[in-house]
Amino acid sequence: MPKTRIGLIGYGGIGRVHAAAYRAIPFHYGLPADSIEIAGVATTRRETAARAAAEIGCDFFTDDYRELLVRDDIDAVDICTPNNSHHELVLAAAAAGKHIYCEKPLAMNALEAASMAQAVAAAGLKAQVTSNFRFFPAVMRARHLIDEGFLGRIFSFRGRYHRSSYIDRDKPMSWRLERAVTGGGALFDLGSHILDLLYYVLGEFDSVHGALDTLIKERPRAKGSAEMAPVDVDDIALLHARLRDGTLGTVEISRMGTGATNDLTFEVFGDRGAIRFNLNEPGWLHVYDARAADSPLGGERGFRKIEAVSRYAGQRAPDWTMTPDFMRAHAECQYQFIKAIWDDRDPSPSFADGLHVQKIMAAAERSSEKGRWVSLSDV
Amino acid sequence: MPKTRIGLIGYGGIGRVHAAAYRAIPFHYGLPADSIEIAGVATTRRETAARAAAEIGCDFFTDDYRELLVRDDIDAVDICTPNNSHHELVLAAAAAGKHIYCEKPLAMNALEAASMAQAVAAAGLKAQVTSNFRFFPAVMRARHLIDEGFLGRIFSFRGRYHRSSYIDRDKPMSWRLERAVTGGGALFDLGSHILDLLYYVLGEFDSVHGALDTLIKERPRAKGSAEMAPVDVDDIALLHARLRDGTLGTVEISRMGTGATNDLTFEVFGDRGAIRFNLNEPGWLHVYDARAADSPLGGERGFRKIEAVSRYAGQRAPDWTMTPDFMRAHAECQYQFIKAIWDDRDPSPSFADGLHVQKIMAAAERSSEKGRWVSLSDV
Amino acid sequence: MPKTRIGLIGYGGIGRVHAAAYRAIPFHYGLPADSIEIAGVATTRRETAARAAAEIGCDFFTDDYRELLVRDDIDAVDICTPNNSHHELVLAAAAAGKHIYCEKPLAMNALEAASMAQAVAAAGLKAQVTSNFRFFPAVMRARHLIDEGFLGRIFSFRGRYHRSSYIDRDKPMSWRLERAVTGGGALFDLGSHILDLLYYVLGEFDSVHGALDTLIKERPRAKGSAEMAPVDVDDIALLHARLRDGTLGTVEISRMGTGATNDLTFEVFGDRGAIRFNLNEPGWLHVYDARAADSPLGGERGFRKIEAVSRYAGQRAPDWTMTPDFMRAHAECQYQFIKAIWDDRDPSPSFADGLHVQKIMAAAERSSEKGRWVSLSDV
Amino acid sequence: MPKTRIGLIGYGGIGRVHAAAYRAIPFHYGLPADSIEIAGVATTRRETAARAAAEIGCDFFTDDYRELLVRDDIDAVDICTPNNSHHELVLAAAAAGKHIYCEKPLAMNALEAASMAQAVAAAGLKAQVTSNFRFFPAVMRARHLIDEGFLGRIFSFRGRYHRSSYIDRDKPMSWRLERAVTGGGALFDLGSHILDLLYYVLGEFDSVHGALDTLIKERPRAKGSAEMAPVDVDDIALLHARLRDGTLGTVEISRMGTGATNDLTFEVFGDRGAIRFNLNEPGWLHVYDARAADSPLGGERGFRKIEAVSRYAGQRAPDWTMTPDFMRAHAECQYQFIKAIWDDRDPSPSFADGLHVQKIMAAAERSSEKGRWVSLSDV
Repeated sequence: MPKTRIGLIGYGGIGRVHAAAYRAIPFHYGLPADSIEIAGVATTRRETAARAAAEIGCDFFTDDYRELLVRDDIDAVDICTPNNSHHELVLAAAAAGKHIYCEKPLAMNALEAASMAQAVAAAGLKAQVTSNFRFFPAVMRARHLIDEGFLGRIFSFRGRYHRSSYIDRDKPMSWRLERAVTGGGALFDLGSHILDLLYYVLGEFDSVHGALDTLIKERPRAKGSAEMAPVDVDDIALLHARLRDGTLGTVEISRMGTGATNDLTFEVFGDRGAIRFNLNEPGWLHVYDARAADSPLGGERGFRKIEAVSRYAGQRAPDWTMTPDFMRAHAECQYQFIKAIWDDRDPSPSFADGLHVQKIMAAAERSSEKGRWVSLSDV
Repeated sequence: MPKTRIGLIGYGGIGRVHAAAYRAIPFHYGLPADSIEIAGVATTRRETAARAAAEIGCDFFTDDYRELLVRDDIDAVDICTPNNSHHELVLAAAAAGKHIYCEKPLAMNALEAASMAQAVAAAGLKAQVTSNFRFFPAVMRARHLIDEGFLGRIFSFRGRYHRSSYIDRDKPMSWRLERAVTGGGALFDLGSHILDLLYYVLGEFDSVHGALDTLIKERPRAKGSAEMAPVDVDDIALLHARLRDGTLGTVEISRMGTGATNDLTFEVFGDRGAIRFNLNEPGWLHVYDARAADSPLGGERGFRKIEAVSRYAGQRAPDWTMTPDFMRAHAECQYQFIKAIWDDRDPSPSFADGLHVQKIMAAAERSSEKGRWVSLSDV
Repeated sequence: MPKTRIGLIGYGGIGRVHAAAYRAIPFHYGLPADSIEIAGVATTRRETAARAAAEIGCDFFTDDYRELLVRDDIDAVDICTPNNSHHELVLAAAAAGKHIYCEKPLAMNALEAASMAQAVAAAGLKAQVTSNFRFFPAVMRARHLIDEGFLGRIFSFRGRYHRSSYIDRDKPMSWRLERAVTGGGALFDLGSHILDLLYYVLGEFDSVHGALDTLIKERPRAKGSAEMAPVDVDDIALLHARLRDGTLGTVEISRMGTGATNDLTFEVFGDRGAIRFNLNEPGWLHVYDARAADSPLGGERGFRKIEAVSRYAGQRAPDWTMTPDFMRAHAECQYQFIKAIWDDRDPSPSFADGLHVQKIMAAAERSSEKGRWVSLSDV
Repeated sequence: MPKTRIGLIGYGGIGRVHAAAYRAIPFHYGLPADSIEIAGVATTRRETAARAAAEIGCDFFTDDYRELLVRDDIDAVDICTPNNSHHELVLAAAAAGKHIYCEKPLAMNALEAASMAQAVAAAGLKAQVTSNFRFFPAVMRARHLIDEGFLGRIFSFRGRYHRSSYIDRDKPMSWRLERAVTGGGALFDLGSHILDLLYYVLGEFDSVHGALDTLIKERPRAKGSAEMAPVDVDDIALLHARLRDGTLGTVEISRMGTGATNDLTFEVFGDRGAIRFNLNEPGWLHVYDARAADSPLGGERGFRKIEAVSRYAGQRAPDWTMTPDFMRAHAECQYQFIKAIWDDRDPSPSFADGLHVQKIMAAAERSSEKGRWVSLSDV
């Protein structure tokens, strides 16, 4: 039986989710409990590392990730730190010969992403980016339907990711609003998700027109502070996009989508059918079949809401979940990474995929500055 | 008691709707039956004109609209003919001193629209464009909420009008696919509606970025024909738009929106609230109140679906209609025109409004050709 | 060309709706304007009758319905008065040889309804009850699907009609809360609608279990009055029902359905499929096809929302209405009545249908008193 | 730091879910990994027990649950076996002095349930029933709103649990269709969930009217077999119910709800507001505030969809989950049990709660036989 030992780097909110998800995998797939082990954890402070280790139930913890990388009892690292550390960590992990699972967005910019993709390829390591939303059953079903030609020729598409986390102008500055830490704003934080989904179901992007705006241009330096700090990242990013195959579509990204909680949707229109996905119903896909004219319904057509949940091939428990949550999709993404190691095959979503998304975002930013379309080959 | 006598020009599908709507107005508002009279009808053929007159219950009919314009017993004309005749008809009606109610889009292009607006202004006539969707209760409520500041500062907006009437590549050519008759494609036919709504609730547009596509570039000349004819209008039009006040938004227009019947929606996001409108629920508005934190619900917020139907001021029957239909909105639009005559005030939506929409469409077309933003002042 | 002249009795809210609906019919079906004429109107007071006649545009009006009945230029009467006058009016109209269109519920009780049905049958007249909700496209489609066996063997059903018009305990007494005027409470006012729909799509009822409650047992005699009057009708009526064919189902009726506007729904479950109707989407039917396992969707099933609007056979304008409103369904119901006269066939819904609904309501009331099931043959 | 060691009895689908849920708790609440330990597992066969132990990662396994009960290193047992074994297992566990967590429905009938409740009370042990649906955030929020009087006086309620697992008449017999194993049909399997939720949010039931039906009365003994076996449990159960406080409501339970996946909903109507819950949106509650007339919305009311997710007090990760899944609610239910042990307080939902639900089901069955209302005090 294969066994993979993981070193976790970073244990904020998302690190905890990853840890919990690794623990759930054996139950989802009927594996021995010890086939996936979190063998150590690194954070930036000794006390948070110790607390993380207790919660995880592992012996080793450190405030220096390098100590993790030198350990022989660690096969892979999982990087859950802020965006501006990914490049350094990935290069170090690759040098240490560890497989790598890295949170999205992959890097601060396309250049960094390219060098990271190159490093892991050169080292012959398995490297996957956390595009966890790909692993909701309805997204997998959408991809499958498009691949098998159910939609026919694709006419156009639309994607959106809205949150409303920053609508309050009194909300103070944070690292998520600083380009130096995050690399970008809503486009990076939210856009990386929806752009990856569109790329996953529809294929490569060719060029984009972007319109980015910073709606609240300065914020209190701290909660209640009268001193203001400038916001140097976008709050909203609107895109028109051309895919390689010529398909035209539109994408809306905003962290000022008042009223939204996690309003991520996409739609694809084809000459034989259409689909609609909504993150709030991740186990269901809305499907329209333009060929339904000769069905027993006598020529009437309409969107059908199909249960997409059986798409976790091999899942054992629970045997039904109409509402696979956030954690389940993370577990699936991580399981695919682990399986890629066990089966010695290329993981997906790969760093090359992460790089493609990074290029889309770079093209959108440049387009917004220039006021014209920008090709991905120019970034 | 005031009384208005109308001459109807054109009696295809939409002419019939206008006629029925005039007849319903007295019941909606408790007016004498004869306060609004359809006194004559003109079509292009004598037999269709005769049949229209019987159905309407009027004595006069003609296949020459000029005969209608010279009659003293006609106060106003209602123009329900294809787009490429509007300019001629409006100018003739204005010269004849008739008030004018004209179907949308107002004209074939911004130049025509400008000359029509100038002609009616010079003649001191009441002239209104059929922007019937403005008169759904939830649209009126949306405008009212924005006007009174309920949404606070506007962050951004989104609009959409999708139909799927042309997804079948075997559907033959028709006048709706010929630029010489319609002036434009989906952008003109559907876009004129959603752009007018956004303009109505949000105010004037400053500039747009347009991406237009003709998805099926040639079609059979006639049903079943092997001979193909080129399609010279757009099937899909994607817009980014800046309003005069700087607000950035996005608009999607398509007649290839597979699965759509009449999928018209808009959303507006502000720092104090948000709204969502959907044409399939024209009596309801989805409203989000960001100030709801201190309500009895204890700090929880969410979209509320409010009944907007009471917005027909003065309506008498029926006392409830959750689903005001297509015809009801037409009746309301026509009633506002009649009232403008009776009260001697400027009608709304005016020809100037129609012209503004025409400019947005022209800017979108030019932008799509040039691959960059185009200002309305440049068209 | 046939022609029918109608005398309208009663011109409150619903009388006005009927009048407007008659006027719309020629436009919906391309008929001569004068094929349906409202030739006179009777109310209880001369001034309301005069105002009604002006609004309708008819010459004759009276405050004595007998004057209407004796006129030769009237072929049919349309009864829009409170429930406790239906019996007298129907008998008088039958004696005068007029065809009869009567608002629902048909009568104060099953006995009255039976004598009315007998009277019109004996006189050989066309008599129809206003079950206008039958004429929403999705209801017609539901009936059609069940008739053609699309659902297979029927397992069970559910119906509901909720309004919230009486939740405020300070709302004063009105005739709708007096048994002597209405014959019953929510069961009669709202129940007559949903029970008729279930009967229409599923067939005859055999027996029912009813649980009725008066939730607010006394109310101010008038607005603001301190004097209280007892409420002697039900506010809520819950039914279990067995159809003749043995099918078991459930029905919920309430005018204290807090939050409801016109929350009328029904669902039917069969071994091959299921349907769901919602009055707020009267042009759409939700349909589930249990045989869909071998579709191109590869074994996935789900509810499909189909457009049911094409069901108005022969309709000419408008060519699309996703939201056929209250008035449109009235027009259709009235048109079927007129057509039954013109074609000399039995109208549907007939007085016998009205009587069946009356028996269901009577059985529900008796069951609630007795605490056990009551058969329709025992009322 | 407290620590609880659990012995798991039964490791079918639901046993696996419980095991996974225990493992997730430390991550949800920031606890040391070893504070909850699954110390052993018992199934009916040695090889399944061994496989379960490997998956769980525990050393002890057995095919004789008594070996589990005698172990000192086990503080509590978790019973995940079929209904007909609960009584024996609970009594044995109580005799062994173990705290008990038992799957629902608690027992085969009210008599068994009463003796089980008595046994654990007499032994002074913590005993909880798996009413996991109580622990969806929106259900907790519903209870909270009702408790604090947000709905005012309760008018009525409705509950429903529909699945469609048995609509195919070729589906063969199984233990879920045998009264001797399950104690009842849809009423027990699905009804126990929805009845518990209604009891949880609204309080004790007084009496019920039940109408139960077995829609497919015999099924193949095995897949494809021509030999038929009788089905002796209900497929559908319709209830009218009176609560102790007099409130009247209705409940629909069916495993022949064609088209349903997990269609569990409830609604509560009060004079100040209303709520709607839907299991497919377990993190959201639909709330209507009848007092909203004086809000900034200017007198309009409507249902608001509020995010209920913050209701997991103390939850640490993830900080948002709009779609808390099946597993999350199990984890919460189990955590409450563990906390009751640690804090030495009465667990909730208790065995007394399980007994109350059992009585409602017994009264419904008896009512259906007798054709009249049955009081819970008579079962």
